[in-house]
This record gives sequence, structure tokens and C-alpha cells, in this order.
Amino acid sequence: MDYLECFFCQKKYPFDPFNTFCPKCQEPLLFSPLVKEKKFSLEEAHPLEKTLDFLPLSKVDLNLSLGEGSTPLIKLKRLSDCYQLPPTFAKNEMFNATGSFKDRGTTVAVQKAVSFGLHKIGTVSTGNMATSTAAYGARARLKTFVLVKEDISSEKLLSTVVYRPVLVKVKGDYGALTSKSFTLGRKYSIYFMNSVDPFRVEGYKVIGFEIFLQLNHQPPQYIFAPVSSGGHLIGLMRAFLDLKQEGFIQQLPIFVGVQAQGCSPIAQAFASGKPKVERIETPKTIAQAISNPDPPGGNILLNMIREDNGMILDVTDEEILEAQKILAEFEGIFCQPASATTLAGLLKLSKKMKFKTTDNIVLVITGSGLKALKAIESSQINVHQASISDLENTLGSLL
Amino acid sequence: MDYLECFFCQKKYPFDPFNTFCPKCQEPLLFSPLVKEKKFSLEEAHPLEKTLDFLPLSKVDLNLSLGEGSTPLIKLKRLSDCYQLPPTFAKNEMFNATGSFKDRGTTVAVQKAVSFGLHKIGTVSTGNMATSTAAYGARARLKTFVLVKEDISSEKLLSTVVYRPVLVKVKGDYGALTSKSFTLGRKYSIYFMNSVDPFRVEGYKVIGFEIFLQLNHQPPQYIFAPVSSGGHLIGLMRAFLDLKQEGFIQQLPIFVGVQAQGCSPIAQAFASGKPKVERIETPKTIAQAISNPDPPGGNILLNMIREDNGMILDVTDEEILEAQKILAEFEGIFCQPASATTLAGLLKLSKKMKFKTTDNIVLVITGSGLKALKAIESSQINVHQASISDLENTLGSLL
Repeated sequence: MDYLECFFCQKKYPFDPFNTFCPKCQEPLLFSPLVKEKKFSLEEAHPLEKTLDFLPLSKVDLNLSLGEGSTPLIKLKRLSDCYQLPPTFAKNEMFNATGSFKDRGTTVAVQKAVSFGLHKIGTVSTGNMATSTAAYGARARLKTFVLVKEDISSEKLLSTVVYRPVLVKVKGDYGALTSKSFTLGRKYSIYFMNSVDPFRVEGYKVIGFEIFLQLNHQPPQYIFAPVSSGGHLIGLMRAFLDLKQEGFIQQLPIFVGVQAQGCSPIAQAFASGKPKVERIETPKTIAQAISNPDPPGGNILLNMIREDNGMILDVTDEEILEAQKILAEFEGIFCQPASATTLAGLLKLSKKMKFKTTDNIVLVITGSGLKALKAIESSQINVHQASISDLENTLGSLL
Repeated sequence: MDYLECFFCQKKYPFDPFNTFCPKCQEPLLFSPLVKEKKFSLEEAHPLEKTLDFLPLSKVDLNLSLGEGSTPLIKLKRLSDCYQLPPTFAKNEMFNATGSFKDRGTTVAVQKAVSFGLHKIGTVSTGNMATSTAAYGARARLKTFVLVKEDISSEKLLSTVVYRPVLVKVKGDYGALTSKSFTLGRKYSIYFMNSVDPFRVEGYKVIGFEIFLQLNHQPPQYIFAPVSSGGHLIGLMRAFLDLKQEGFIQQLPIFVGVQAQGCSPIAQAFASGKPKVERIETPKTIAQAISNPDPPGGNILLNMIREDNGMILDVTDEEILEAQKILAEFEGIFCQPASATTLAGLLKLSKKMKFKTTDNIVLVITGSGLKALKAIESSQINVHQASISDLENTLGSLL
């Protein structure tokens, strides 16, 4: 029997896929792990099997996996040389089945759905999570319901519709739609694995475990991650809290969540010392993948960050686009604007504080730039023209 | 000193990055390995380090890598159950830095470029290879020249231009442009690592080694791969030839190259028993990534395939699109049309011959569907509409 627990009132509830919020606090419930000694199974090939002891799974059905995880952690030497930063690494989550970190959460939630004998899953999303849930739902032969906002572009729909989910465009407020999805999920036995689903969050922990393993079983000093609903960073933090509790590490990394200034409810609450996150009325940022005006995991994350000396920053769209450009031009990494917030946050913070030269910094690059090509302005395209006969002169002038 | 060798006249030449064609046969030269005992270094993390003995590298500079490789090999159980096929696997090469198998070749060619002290690299491409070369060139701080056809779409340009290569649109015949690139490369010291570059081909071998290792050190009975210039499949075959020569395997897989019917010069030569591949005049297929009317590796591949009892098939655009759909809807894998030729080829062949139930079949999925979204017809988008208040009825009717 799996139990979920409320972060705030600490009450435990048996897991019910159709009811994952605390009836008292209305906050999302998180998974409550069994107390047992945990170890890594490094001889296993699949990341879920490697870290099984730390996950809410008793076994892994590889027929449900799309090969997610084991993403590279690469050193950004050019970047740190140029900007006089300590050793900085990119944990590149675009190396996943649908090109984003969402696959890490979806894979665990789908393992649970199948082990519970469920046949219908769903999600409310306009981007990465819709694609990921539709892909894993197809692979697992689950009927998959994807609810999207009315004004979604047909381009964004395309990369989800290929997996043939049941797709419904819904008119109305996005927050209200999310609440409604849970109500209807209960009624129709559809397990809505939305952004702060407790098993999604457990899946995000694996990113943290891999960072630890890839740094030769050491924690980095800083981890920068984009923040939208809060679920991703909550998962990363829980990974290192697990590692500390099990005695693998003595010191937690400093977690730096980064939001886009045009939609930064958690950063605002953090900066102003408020106890709760307040909803943003009119979000406006180029980083669409993290434009969540009413983040369901906001209050939990705010508390966790304060408890563990982390921080939540915001960065402007200009800083985001500049960071996206730097990652591509200096390091060959083309990520979504949302992912570039990590470097934007690091560059911003490096102007205010001095890192130690021995610090290791990790940026979690959450998704591929191919999924947000429209964010690149055509004005950036600098193209020369030539015919084959005058190519010699043209190239000669460009050396 | 590295040597290259002509497949046909078997003459050896010292490696010259500006001259990689046989002066006698005009065919692309391939790498000529040193004869030494080879083993895998399975304790290493990076695939180039794991397979270093088999590669034309004496060491690997990880600062030039983007974390390519170690891509998943996943079992397509739903597919093989449904179509009564033997165990079928997808080797999913979209788990690479720029979303395609090209990164496997680029990484090795760039390691060589840097070790030779070169500062300028280039490529002639309109798609995956342009993006890959631009990304690795940026990471390695090499001035990177990308020559593209005049009629390239701005969408295709975007995913390459982000890395800021020197991009030149060239008017005129594509084959002539490729020849010209080598001439100008010699003149301007630009190492043009085009499609059948000898080090690219060595990089593609690593895909083959990983398949062998992932199948518990056994070769599969069949490998299906899309065929364009020929370089990719030549590399895959060379991997298993190496494994046989070193005594790791006794029997080669049967290699099945698949071309799109609208541009299938190698398949045509294979079917008609011709000794040489003849240029196609007006290629026309939805699988743009493999639409090469005059494949530089065609003659070598044709000979290798005949020597080792392989085959080259062609499939129609309808078969390709149907296979793309099946992979997405049955297995959650959304690939480019070019990659879907593998499944289309398997389904076609399975109607003509009987596989053994113990055969293992591997489809090499070369690139992400996100790179060819335009190939998906909007007519495929089946979307329902609802408001929040009538969502209950709408979902109820869709269960």
C-alpha cells in the first residue's frame, strides 16, 4: 500500500489516483516513502532500476519505458572560462523520448497507473507534458485524455496529436480547468497525472540521483532549475534530501529556482517574504513552458527553499534570450527559453555574489529548443548568398 | 599517422582532411584501421571511450562532446504482437544532442579536426547534418561553414542558425556544390565533413557496437536502416565486420537498407543487378532527410550489401507515413519520415518472407519527428471542443 503525505499538516493518506490533494490544506500530497535502507543498483542499465530503492516502485516494466533518463551531464568549459565562473555543467534533459524532462515524471506515473490496473490517464497541459503523457500513454496502451487551452497553436498540437490521444480544447480559465480535471477524473476513472502529481515528482528525483552519480558520488554546490508548477524542483530537492538522510552526502546543494519575470509568483513571494504564493493575473513571457500563473506546488516549494537556504530568482525575457543564445553559440546546446532561465539566473547571481572556484554548478536544461522554434526571431538568421561559380569569392570573403 | 583506403582498388593514402576521395576510382575513401587486438572498455561512461579500440581516435576530448550516444534500444512488444513479427527493437538515435544520428559522426570528425589542429570545418547539407555540424563546431570553437541549397525553408534554417555558423545559401546543383566544397576546402583549409566523410562513417560504427552490447553481446539477425548517401549503413556494417574479425561474433546480421521509392538510386541498382548506382534525375519523396539523388557512398554500399547477403528495399511515401503513424500510436515513438522507412521496409519484407520467431530485428530510428513537423498533415488533428461547464458531457461521450 502506497501512502501520500501532506507537506504542511503531515497527515498521511492511502494513495488514491483520483484524489491527490490534502483535504485539509488543499495542497498537493507528496509520496510518503517507506523507511528502509536504500542503495543504488549500479549494475542495472535502466535509471529507474538503478535507483529503484528510492522510488515508489517495486519493479520496473520496461515495456512501458521509452528509454528515458541517463541523460548527459556535460561540462561547459568555454562558458565558465569566458564568464569567469566555477566549473559549470549542463544536465541535458532534452535527451529524452519526447525531448523534455517531463518524460522522467510520466514514466513513473505510468508505471503506477498500470500496476494499479488503471486503463485511462490524462493531463492538463499546453506543451511538454501533453506530448510526454500522450507518448507514454500510447506505449502503455492506455486511453489518454489531453486537455488543452482553446488558443493552443496547431503547431504545438501536432507534436502531441501524432500519438493519437483524446484531445479536447477547453474554453475557460486554466486553473479552473485543472481543478475540474480532478473532479472529472474521479467521476470517470481517469488518472489525471498533472504537474505536481506525487509520482511525477518522484520521477524527477532520478535527475538528481544521476547528477550525484555523474559527479563521482558528490553533490554539486549549486543546482539551477526553471520553476513553473514547482513539481520539478521539489523532486530534485527530494532526491538530495533522500541522499542526505541515507548518509550518501553531508551537505545539500544550494537550490536556485528561476522564474521568468513576466510570470514569477513564487519568486515574488520569496523576495517579499510572504508565507504563501499569490496568483499572477496576466502572465507574459517568452518562456511559455514555465508560464504558470497559479503554481500548484508553489507553497510547498517556497517552504522547502526557505528551510534549505535555497533561493528563487526571476530573470527578464531579454536575459533569457541572451542566455539561450550563449548556450547555443558557446556550447552547442539549443534549449527552450524556459531552460535558458538557468543560465540567465546564474549570470545574474554571479554579478551579486562570488562563487568559490571549487564550486560545482549544475544547470538543468529541461527541454529542446526544437519545441519552441518560434521563440527564435527570424532577424537572427544571417545568411549569405552565392552561386556555385562565385562561391569561391564568397567563402574567401568570409574566412 | 592515419591511413585511408579505397574500397575498390584497395590502395592506401595518408589521411588528408582536404582530400578524402580515391584519385583513381573517385570513390570516397574509408578509414584503414591498424591491425591490433581490440576490446571494449565497458567501465568507461562515454560511448567513444567504451569503444575506443575500434575507432580512429587515440583519446577522447570530452570538452568536444555533447553527450551523444548510449541511446536506448527498446523492445517494440505491442508492434510485434500486433503484426506477428519476431522480437523487434528500436535503436532510438533521436536521443542525441541535435536529435539525430548525425551527431555520432560529427563527434568523431570534430575530435579529429581538433587533434589535427584545424580551425575551420564545414558541411553541405539541408537538414540534420547542417544542424549537427553547426552545434559541434560551436562547442569546439571551430569556425563552421554550412552550405545549403537556395530553396531551404526558413524553418529548417532556424534550428541550425542558432549555433551561429557561417551560413551560405548556394544556387545551383547539389551534387556540383558538394564537389565544389571539397575544392574550396583544399584552397581555404576548411575541412568539409560531408556525408561519407571517413571519420563520420567510423562514428556511425558506435551505433552498431551499442546494439551488440545492448543485446547481451549478441548480434541481431536483422538490422533495418534508412539509406541516403550510404555513409550511415556503411558504418553500421563496418561495426559488425569488426566484431566478426575480432571473434566477438560468428555470423553477421542481415542488413536491410531502405530507400524512399521517389529517390531510390541504390535500391534500383540492387534490384536490377547493375554494377553501379545511377543518379536519379527528379527525386520526390516526403522523406527529405534521405532524398539524395546521387549518393556518394552508393557504390561501396551496393558492393558491401551484395558481399554480405544484405538487401536494399524501397518503400512508398504512403508506406512511410503509415509506418510513422504506427510507431507513434503503438509505441510512443515519433520519428522523421526518413526513420519510418525502417518499419515500412520490415512490414513490406514480412509479407514476402517468413522470419524465425527467434530472430531479433533492430530498426535504427535516425531522427526526431520534431524536425519534420510539416510532414504531418493537419488533417490528422482530431480535436474535440468544450467549455469547462460542458467538459463533463464531452469527456463522458469520449470514454
